[in-house]
Amino acid sequence: MRHAVILAGGSGTRLWPASRRARPKQLIALAAGGDALVTTATRIGEQLAPGRVTIVTAASQAAATREVVPQVPLIEEPFGRNTAAAIGLAAARLVRSDPDAVLAIMPADQHVTNQPGLVHALDVALTAAETTDAIATIGIAPTRAETGFGYLELAGPAVLDAVMPVVRFVEKPDLATAERYVSSGRYLWNAGIFCARAERLLAELTSKLPATAEAVRAIAADPATAAARYEPLASISIDHAVMEKALNVVTVPASVGWDDIGSWAALPAVRGEDDAHNTLAGDALVLDGTGNIVMTDGPLVATVGVSDLVIVKSGDAILVIPKARAQDVRAIIDALNARGLQRFT
Amino acid sequence: MRHAVILAGGSGTRLWPASRRARPKQLIALAAGGDALVTTATRIGEQLAPGRVTIVTAASQAAATREVVPQVPLIEEPFGRNTAAAIGLAAARLVRSDPDAVLAIMPADQHVTNQPGLVHALDVALTAAETTDAIATIGIAPTRAETGFGYLELAGPAVLDAVMPVVRFVEKPDLATAERYVSSGRYLWNAGIFCARAERLLAELTSKLPATAEAVRAIAADPATAAARYEPLASISIDHAVMEKALNVVTVPASVGWDDIGSWAALPAVRGEDDAHNTLAGDALVLDGTGNIVMTDGPLVATVGVSDLVIVKSGDAILVIPKARAQDVRAIIDALNARGLQRFT
Repeated sequence: MRHAVILAGGSGTRLWPASRRARPKQLIALAAGGDALVTTATRIGEQLAPGRVTIVTAASQAAATREVVPQVPLIEEPFGRNTAAAIGLAAARLVRSDPDAVLAIMPADQHVTNQPGLVHALDVALTAAETTDAIATIGIAPTRAETGFGYLELAGPAVLDAVMPVVRFVEKPDLATAERYVSSGRYLWNAGIFCARAERLLAELTSKLPATAEAVRAIAADPATAAARYEPLASISIDHAVMEKALNVVTVPASVGWDDIGSWAALPAVRGEDDAHNTLAGDALVLDGTGNIVMTDGPLVATVGVSDLVIVKSGDAILVIPKARAQDVRAIIDALNARGLQRFT
Repeated sequence: MRHAVILAGGSGTRLWPASRRARPKQLIALAAGGDALVTTATRIGEQLAPGRVTIVTAASQAAATREVVPQVPLIEEPFGRNTAAAIGLAAARLVRSDPDAVLAIMPADQHVTNQPGLVHALDVALTAAETTDAIATIGIAPTRAETGFGYLELAGPAVLDAVMPVVRFVEKPDLATAERYVSSGRYLWNAGIFCARAERLLAELTSKLPATAEAVRAIAADPATAAARYEPLASISIDHAVMEKALNVVTVPASVGWDDIGSWAALPAVRGEDDAHNTLAGDALVLDGTGNIVMTDGPLVATVGVSDLVIVKSGDAILVIPKARAQDVRAIIDALNARGLQRFT
């Protein structure tokens, strides 16, 4: 049977201060559609019967997650160990009650404007996983030369909603390379959304990360051992651990208005811009400035003569950072931790 | 007898959002010494007997001012009409009970690190006013080529604490001119601090602004008529109306760590800078940036990779503006008023 697995355990530090340890980004209503996680769960719910959506999240975020989506069963990671272990955990759990489980796996912190389109692409990908035992990713038709994403390389131009072999996984490219990718028509954004039979994923882990495979099967059999067994596991992504080396990896090219809300710089693509190319949420007054992202949960933010700046007030903190350096929010988290100011993280 | 008159009626919009209509900058503890107005009053009190310090303030700010300095008598301006009228109002009032009143007049929103030095210079200036009927300004020895201040030109190099004739008042110069002024030793900052007999000031007003002179004398005789008589008066500074055209204007050169807190850009001179040349007040974390001014009344402000920026959180508003454009805070006030958002001003 088909299952959806939503990966919600990320720390989301790059969206600080809106995203905090106890309330990370996937729980925050960033997109216009409301809470990102709830949106994702609802979307999958259109295709799957209730009770076949599972969320994998960090134990430290379980209570907050349960508050937002009380109807969805959770799998708790005792520690963050990246996506290979998290997906293994879910596959091992689900395969116990459903040996034929086919999983649609997706991160919680994404945004899709065309939800029926995604549901259709997932249907094609799930069918490929069921009928050919493929690992079937959703490949997003790129809309800009984005250097912050990984890409999937095809042998020829992408055909929407077709099942096409993946030639290669490509890491984040530089700008010139990204521009070449986009104009070629042979590269798709790797959105981290993919479908596969649970047993195939466990078999891949057994060959490529045997300790992880053994641990997640043991945890599924005896959840009380989770902390002890999970702690020593390698922290590695499913892309690096499995996908880049696996055979029979295909993709379903999709044009569904997808975007990652991976940093503040991605917000304009999700929320839109005003005539001066500013993206504003809350009471904001931007004079003589363009390309700014301003979000406030209360106080008025007023600026004169600043451009391409991210200004975010959320809770007890205010962030000011150039849009081009939005990834460096992590440096703030590190500095706060180093100074004993964890209460702000 | 000697009296101090503190001019506290300014709107202080250039220090928004710390400075608001109902609580303008002179009431705000910007300088390390605490509330600027209280500091000024205390300083004068060291030289003058109690009861001989008077504050001139706007009627709209009277209640807030009284809260801060309940022991100091206020003269309320019904409307803001600049310094010529405000000083006339005080002179006309004080001369009624003390015909020989000699006034030390100073703005409330200034900062002096060497208070005994200022008190000494004021003593020299008051003596000059008493013995020679001069208008005796305090001329501040410049410490940088500031283009935001007016200057006093002398015939020769300034001698500290001497009484020297003023050749000319000079408006805000451009940078090259300001640099020439500072290196010449013949120019002093016009701090707006000066001493004169009240009757001399009223005589100057009678010859140069007769309507103002008549109105302030009539208001002193019958305060109930203040609103009607004050409203039509010309809004002009005492410098333009009187000082620039008067005879026997002298200055006492002083080196007293004076600075004007006229805009956020002046704050580093008053509060100092850290090793990275940032001026921080409140919880602030500035990574990879220099020359910033960050003030917050609560939330942590964290920045990465921004320089020469003013970031101020105060009450229900947050300001972000390049230091070089600090004067343009007025544009925010104008825009807020135009949009019906007076509640933030």
